[in-house]
Formats: sequence, structure tokens, C-alpha cells
Amino acid sequence: MAFQKPTGTQDLLPGMVEKWQYVEQKARDLCRRFNYREIRTPLFEQTDLFVRGVGDTTDIVEKEMYTFNDKGDRSMTLRPEGTAGVVRAYVENKLYGEPDVSKLYYIGPMFRYERPQAGRYRQFHQFGVEAFGAVDPAIDAEVISLGYQFCKELGMQGVKVEINSVGTPETRTAYREQLLAYLTPMKDSLCKDCKSRIDRNPMRVLDCKVDQDKFHDAPSILESLDEECSTLFENVKQHLDVMEVDYVVNPRLVRGLDYYTHTAFEFKAEGIGAIDTIGGGGRYNGLVSGIGGPDQPGIGVGIGLERIILILEKQQIELNALKPLDVYFVALGEEADKEITKQLFKLRQLGFSAERDYLGRKMKAQMKSSDRFKARYTAILGEDELQRGEIALKSMETGEQLTVKLDEIHLNLV
Amino acid sequence: MAFQKPTGTQDLLPGMVEKWQYVEQKARDLCRRFNYREIRTPLFEQTDLFVRGVGDTTDIVEKEMYTFNDKGDRSMTLRPEGTAGVVRAYVENKLYGEPDVSKLYYIGPMFRYERPQAGRYRQFHQFGVEAFGAVDPAIDAEVISLGYQFCKELGMQGVKVEINSVGTPETRTAYREQLLAYLTPMKDSLCKDCKSRIDRNPMRVLDCKVDQDKFHDAPSILESLDEECSTLFENVKQHLDVMEVDYVVNPRLVRGLDYYTHTAFEFKAEGIGAIDTIGGGGRYNGLVSGIGGPDQPGIGVGIGLERIILILEKQQIELNALKPLDVYFVALGEEADKEITKQLFKLRQLGFSAERDYLGRKMKAQMKSSDRFKARYTAILGEDELQRGEIALKSMETGEQLTVKLDEIHLNLV
Repeated sequence: MAFQKPTGTQDLLPGMVEKWQYVEQKARDLCRRFNYREIRTPLFEQTDLFVRGVGDTTDIVEKEMYTFNDKGDRSMTLRPEGTAGVVRAYVENKLYGEPDVSKLYYIGPMFRYERPQAGRYRQFHQFGVEAFGAVDPAIDAEVISLGYQFCKELGMQGVKVEINSVGTPETRTAYREQLLAYLTPMKDSLCKDCKSRIDRNPMRVLDCKVDQDKFHDAPSILESLDEECSTLFENVKQHLDVMEVDYVVNPRLVRGLDYYTHTAFEFKAEGIGAIDTIGGGGRYNGLVSGIGGPDQPGIGVGIGLERIILILEKQQIELNALKPLDVYFVALGEEADKEITKQLFKLRQLGFSAERDYLGRKMKAQMKSSDRFKARYTAILGEDELQRGEIALKSMETGEQLTVKLDEIHLNLV
Repeated sequence: MAFQKPTGTQDLLPGMVEKWQYVEQKARDLCRRFNYREIRTPLFEQTDLFVRGVGDTTDIVEKEMYTFNDKGDRSMTLRPEGTAGVVRAYVENKLYGEPDVSKLYYIGPMFRYERPQAGRYRQFHQFGVEAFGAVDPAIDAEVISLGYQFCKELGMQGVKVEINSVGTPETRTAYREQLLAYLTPMKDSLCKDCKSRIDRNPMRVLDCKVDQDKFHDAPSILESLDEECSTLFENVKQHLDVMEVDYVVNPRLVRGLDYYTHTAFEFKAEGIGAIDTIGGGGRYNGLVSGIGGPDQPGIGVGIGLERIILILEKQQIELNALKPLDVYFVALGEEADKEITKQLFKLRQLGFSAERDYLGRKMKAQMKSSDRFKARYTAILGEDELQRGEIALKSMETGEQLTVKLDEIHLNLV
């Protein structure tokens, strides 16, 4: 008997995990510069929050949630996405009472029971930001520029932003009628999911993974926008222009839920094949009130970290690798062994990374270990040196070897 | 209708979350210095892994696990602790085939359905390290010193380490007989859990939260150690001595599971009342083979981060707070508004943190906002300055105001 990780999940081991640390550190530093602050919400929530906050006609809620009853017999669900929990926390903790716009970010695991495939896992990870309380198009553009800048700073090539406006619920009622008139005659040729969605939520049909290539001549929602919506959209584009964000307008980029409004966008990486979407987001002025909060506008973006890592690998972009070790200690004899423990701990307290052997290996094997850790120095302590209060310090770069006082090792780690 | 977070979970909001970031960053930096590398395993695993790896007579497995069937009808459990998953990954990914000792760390959420109380949550977080492949007492002492140093560097007062040796399975067979002889006469006076555990696992009885005060004169396991076990324990203490780790031997500190061997330890903070345990760990030479892997020794430590944060708060230790904002931009007029977007983005790209207003507020309200963000500078752009390609830059510390060129703002943020 040997245990295996659950299907569709990953172990991130040393060697790979440093790439994740680098990407996450980049996200955190970006948020510092853009003045977004972290929020951490529980990894499970009441199931109804996601039914309301993600939407009961979505694939996520219909097919993919990890839902279970806890020992108190309450239905809980592992979060399938990041926004609903943040909105719940924004309302429950009354952050809308603060004088400034709430600019929040999250990084962490999400869970969807999907068929595992390249870059898609049942436990996956997202970085996202949410801004609540402002309708200023400057913040729509800021959220887009943050996602764009994230990809650029990681070194990603061919990053494209697609943007659109999906207007207000009123605009969309008009558009829905046009879309129904367009879709109904072709209903019989569509997939099972599309058929069942046409009447409930025809805009979701345009997103269908099976049928979306059939809708090239579908009506454009941009033609249904009223003047206020058009002006807002123009303003978002102007803010993007001054930041030189590379975007195109895609009128078929619609989000099918009632609380989505105005700006919608997606990030793609060109030239890497079919799985090219990195993330996306949009404005959701109806979401906060939709889950029972006050009537506050919001906008957010979510970016898949597995997807980011996969694209960077495909583009052969090297992320910052492991830092070398400062010192590897080699002890010869029992007395030296205890002294090494002391020196190791002292250097670690002073901020240096330091390592030793724990396997009773011969000196030659220990030197090989020092090489594997890419140590800058190897420090070798024999009985003679110990008696004199000294240690041999060898630079692994130059091969030069010095004898230094035991209590001055740190002064020689230049 | 308004949604609430699940009972026993927390939202970590801006203001609090920065403390967590500081503690986690400290853990990561400590692991860099001690040469432990991160491993990330899935947040849920097959239920049987925890039954085998934590032990079916433990409170955790008997009462506290979040267990559910996934959509493929496999029994899964949210991880209630960190070690079992790391051991599973060590075996599944054949890390035991590598030439050096596997020194791994994890930081992340764990889940136990417990009665919520101060410092105890149903979703809680642990930092832990595990070292596989070595029996050298230097590594037992290293793992203890790492936990000790973590608490010290956070500024915690009165940190105490309790250590013990629980020997080998053979030592323990002898000790179990002694313990049974001691416990059996008092069986009727013990709690329900203890009664049911006396025969299955009498060492677990000494851990009982209800009855533990009754066992002051229980036999000591140290008296059952053979010479090899005693020598190992002496060596661990000598390594701790040279590092000046402040420990005491507590012979009643026993871990009740068969795969625990030799060194056991706990960290406590003195003078903060009843909830004083920060974390603990020990050697588990039987665990890797116990879950179906090769016969490899291991040792680890786990530290509760909620507990760390709570103790630091009780001891009124201030953690590194939020960094101030570099620049807050105030725009006067529509043209200035777009220019601000451009300058904001440029400074953020250059590494500065920068913010603006998104609420169409008057200048006075924007200046207040700049104060709230503790901005180092406020940059004010009116139509006149814009025409001249300039901007007013006010130091919020000195009150001094300069007029600088728009493309030279970054040169003036000293």
C-alpha cells in the first residue's frame, strides 16, 4: 500500500516551488505599489454564498463545486473562486463604512471538480484584486493595468488585453432580446448546455466552450449601449491609452450574470496554442447588493497562477532560481561536531544560510554535498584547528583557502 | 439576508493581515538560513492517509476531521495537520532517493472541527518543518533550535522548550506495562475517553485534557530507556547546550503513537495563562514506513500561527506595521486627471507605491486621504502646472513644497 495525492492535485516540490514563490512575491510587490492590501477569507463558505455570488446557471455551481455537510449538518463549499468570499467579508466587516475606496487583493487556493488537463487542476491558485466603492473609470483602467503589468514584469511575451462594455441591466435587457432572436433559429444545432441556457441566460451561451465558434455574426452588445455607458467605456479606454496598455475591443466578450456591468476584460498570451487565457475580470456593480449588502459598486480581476507558470515555461522564461548557500560546514571528529553546531547556529542568527552533514559521511562526500547546495564557502574544522580556535574557510568560487578565527567566520563571508 | 463567515473561521483584514505577512516572512527567512526548502501539498488528501498517518485513536481522527465524498465518491479529508501530507509526498515523489537529507518546510491552512475558543479556529494555520533520512542527534537539536529561534526573533518573551525521549517501540512496550499497572487501579475515576484508551493506547491517556493533572506520580519513560536511547538523548542535549537553547526535561511529555521515537518536545510561552503551548514535535522513525514508504527516519516540528499572533498580542509586542505610501496624487480638472493616471502608472512601474482619488472628492478631502495613507509626498496637478509640464510636490513630513518637472517626479522622492 502506498498513498497517492488526489487526482487533479499537485505536489509543489523544492526546485518548482521557488518559481511559485517568485510569482507570488511579484504579485505582492505589485499590490504594494498599486496600494492594494491583502485580505484572507476562509477556504470554505456557506454553499449559498456561491450559488448567489457566482450564479446558479454557471458551470461552476452546476457541476464543479466541492460541497459537503459539516459535522453541524450545514452545507459548506470549498471556494471555487475568490470574489464571492471577499464580497461577503467586505459586507460582513462593514468595510463600506471606511472613507477611502476598499482596494483588496488575495492569493490562494481554489477548488473545482473538473476533468484534469494541462494547466487545469482541481486545487488551483489565483491572484486577484477587488476594488469596492468607486465608479470612476480611472479604477477600471487601474485594475486592467495591474493585471497587464503583472504579466509584463514576469517577462511574459505577447500579452494582449481584450476589453468590452456589457452596459447596465437595462442595456442588457435590450441586448438579450436581440440575442434571443439571433440564437433561437439555431437552437437545434447547439449543445445540450446551450439549449438549456438560451432561455435562462442567453449571454452565457456566447461563452460556451463547445459552440462558441458558431457565433461569429452574433449581434454586438456595444450597439445597445446608451450614451452614459458609451462615455464611461470611452473614458476607460483613454486612461488605458495614457498608460500605453496594449488592448483590443472584443464585443463578444460578455459575462453572463446579471450583476456584471460596464467594463469586462480578459488577458491572453499570444502564440502558445489553445490554452491562452491568463485571467480576466470586470465591473460588478450589482454583486454587493446581490449577496445582501449595500448598493456599492465593485470591480475586480482574477489571474490563474498555474496558467502563469505554464505560459512562462512554454515561453522558456527563467524565473529567479534558488539562492546559493553561504557556508557548508565539514567537521572532522566528535569535538569538532559540537563546535560546528555552535558555529552553524551563530551564523544563522546573523542572517547567513548555513548547512552541515547529518549522515556521518566522509569528507569527500560532504564536499560533494557542498557543491550540490552551490555553497559560496566550505568551512572545514579538524581537531588541530579546533585546539587553536581556528577553522579553514575555502571559497568555492576561487578555490582560495584561508585560516580564520572561529569567532570571525562571519567577517570573512564577503 | 446577509452572509456570514462559517463558525470558527476568521477574515484577516488589512491592518491585521500585515502581522501575518510579517510572521510568515520571518518563517521563510529562517528556513532559508537553516536550509529548509518549501513543499506544498494539496489541502485535502485521501481520508485513509490521516487515519494511518495521524492515528485512529487520536482526537483528530476520532472527532475532528472535515471528511466528505468527492463527486467521484472517494472519501477525502481536509488536512487536519501538516506532517501526513508531507510524508506522503516524500514517498510518492521518491525524495528518499536524493543524496542529501530532505529538509522541508510548509506554511498553510489546516482544518479541525473543534469547539471554537480563544486562539483556536476550525481553519487554522501552521508553520512546520520535516527532516527525513537522518538519525544524527544534530538534526534533532537543529529542528528544536529552529522553533526556538523563530519565537525569539519575533520578540516573544519567556519562551521555554520542554524535551523528552520516548525511546524505541521496544522501550515503549516495557514502559506500557508499567503504565498499565499504574493506570488500571484508577480507571474508574478517569474520563470516558481515558477509559476507552487505557487498553488501546495508555500513553495517550497522559495527554488527556481532562485528566492530566491526576498523573503526577506516573512512572517516567526515561527510566525505561536502554543505553543507546539514553546516549542519543544525551547527545541531543549537548547540541542544544552549545546553542544555548533554554530547555527543561519533562519526562511526562510522551506522544502516544507507535511511530514516534526518541526525541519529543514542546514550546511554551511563560506568563500568559492557560493557553501557553506554541507548538511541538518529535522524531517519528516509524511514520514513513507506517504509511507504506521505505524505512526512513524523520523528525519535525509544527507551530500554530494563530497561537503565535495571540501570544505576541498578549505580550504587547508590536510587529512591523504597514509601510507608508510614497506619493498621493491630487488632480484638479479633467485634463490633469488623465495625466495623473499616466504619472501614477509610471511611478508604480519604477517601484514606488502611489495612489489617487477615485471618488471625485474635493481637494481638501483628498489631502485627508493622503494623510490616512501616511503618504510621504502629495503631488498636486492643476491646469496651469500641466500646461508648463510641471507638478507641485509637497513633503508631508516637512511641509516643504517644490515645483518639479512632470517627468522628474521620481528623482525628487528621496
